[in-house]
Amino acid sequence: MTVRQLSLPELAAGCARLGIRQVGLWREPVRAYGVAETSALVRDAGLRVTTLCRGGFLTAVDADARAAALADNRRAVDEAAALGTDTLVLVSGGLPAGAKDLGAARERVADALTELAPYAGDHGVRVAVEPLHPMYASDRCVVSTLTQALDLAERFPAHQVGVAVDTYHVWWDDRAPAEIARAGASGRIHTFQLADWTTPLPEGVLTGRGRLGDGAIDLRAWTSHVAAAGYTGPIEVELFNEDLWARDGQEVLTETAERFLQHVVG
Amino acid sequence: MTVRQLSLPELAAGCARLGIRQVGLWREPVRAYGVAETSALVRDAGLRVTTLCRGGFLTAVDADARAAALADNRRAVDEAAALGTDTLVLVSGGLPAGAKDLGAARERVADALTELAPYAGDHGVRVAVEPLHPMYASDRCVVSTLTQALDLAERFPAHQVGVAVDTYHVWWDDRAPAEIARAGASGRIHTFQLADWTTPLPEGVLTGRGRLGDGAIDLRAWTSHVAAAGYTGPIEVELFNEDLWARDGQEVLTETAERFLQHVVG
Repeated sequence: MTVRQLSLPELAAGCARLGIRQVGLWREPVRAYGVAETSALVRDAGLRVTTLCRGGFLTAVDADARAAALADNRRAVDEAAALGTDTLVLVSGGLPAGAKDLGAARERVADALTELAPYAGDHGVRVAVEPLHPMYASDRCVVSTLTQALDLAERFPAHQVGVAVDTYHVWWDDRAPAEIARAGASGRIHTFQLADWTTPLPEGVLTGRGRLGDGAIDLRAWTSHVAAAGYTGPIEVELFNEDLWARDGQEVLTETAERFLQHVVG
Repeated sequence: MTVRQLSLPELAAGCARLGIRQVGLWREPVRAYGVAETSALVRDAGLRVTTLCRGGFLTAVDADARAAALADNRRAVDEAAALGTDTLVLVSGGLPAGAKDLGAARERVADALTELAPYAGDHGVRVAVEPLHPMYASDRCVVSTLTQALDLAERFPAHQVGVAVDTYHVWWDDRAPAEIARAGASGRIHTFQLADWTTPLPEGVLTGRGRLGDGAIDLRAWTSHVAAAGYTGPIEVELFNEDLWARDGQEVLTETAERFLQHVVG
């Protein structure tokens, strides 16, 4: 998503050029290109798919809407399995129109996971419940903290449900380091994503994620937290940023790799 | 601030017209009108000033900047005392440029309170530490939760430091009801403010507070939480909203009073 201006073949070529051997994909471009075609493309390029983003949006009350959401999430599991990734990122969904009860909405997510988690596990796919920043609580994701995400995940086996840790969403939370340790102890950190926090936020607050090193987040510290919790998996850089999308995608890919080396592991 | 388009005499007249006998004021219009003049105006109008907004911005590292901030906060205490209110709302301030350590910034706020709190108490003024929504953590307020605000406040006597509970800032937090109970038990709920949560958020996320009843917040439930915690003080409606500021101020005042009766106590 950081370089959504690139086609999937362009992305694969850019990764090969930079020696990047793992890539996180989103469902929309995968489905547009074709799931089987994407699977062949990444295999031929020697790429491993880290995660597929995203399932979720499971907070509806209406029975038909719930059934449709579950069916879509099963398809997302199938797509993940076809791409050879073991992880499907899940964003819970926001409050239905007129609803005001965040706790009840989270329980509807738990109910849906009761059906989705075993289906995912049977297909070799782990669901990674991603808490989003509290500024998305009403319209996008009623799971706002790692604590809440883990409370949901721990109702299921770790090979079925864990969490996604994204610095953009958790950096403000003084409990998050302890929750990362808790997640690591039960093998539930299913992916680790980086973005920096910059202000002012844009209208709608969706597309203002900062380039690594431009913002307020101590990226090295958070990377240390997940490492100390035993996480040895891939680290994804996920930037929704209009300025980056307006630039040459290969240039952005190169710059992002350089910034990763400079601000995270350097 | 909900009707900042009104002059202070217009505001006083509007309150009289509606039978509103208490009003929260901000420092900027008070200082522009004159502190003594405002004090006389509200006294003559039979109004009680609930709180003065706001002190704070105490996160600087530089010694001169810290001294200047403390001096300004002492003036704010003096102004509150002159207006006859016992409560000064305090917004801690964000991260200094280049800083990435929220915990260290919160400790600098605590250090400043060590000087400010006794000064306030000596003048009959309580400081109300206001946690702001985590989306303001970097640029405005490193105190993001009621838990953090209470942890700060409890280092001081309750007649010196407590907290401000604003639905806009805490509504997403599943721990907030328990923290309200904790604050109430030690007499530290120093004000209670209402705004609703509506999306999409505007650029900069400062001026998008929703009118009572327009958004996702269960205002009655939060009002019950503070009541159950023993709070019997005034309830303030604080809406930063460009659309409201563009309308006739008296009309907005009337509408806000009606919505309060309809969505909060009705």
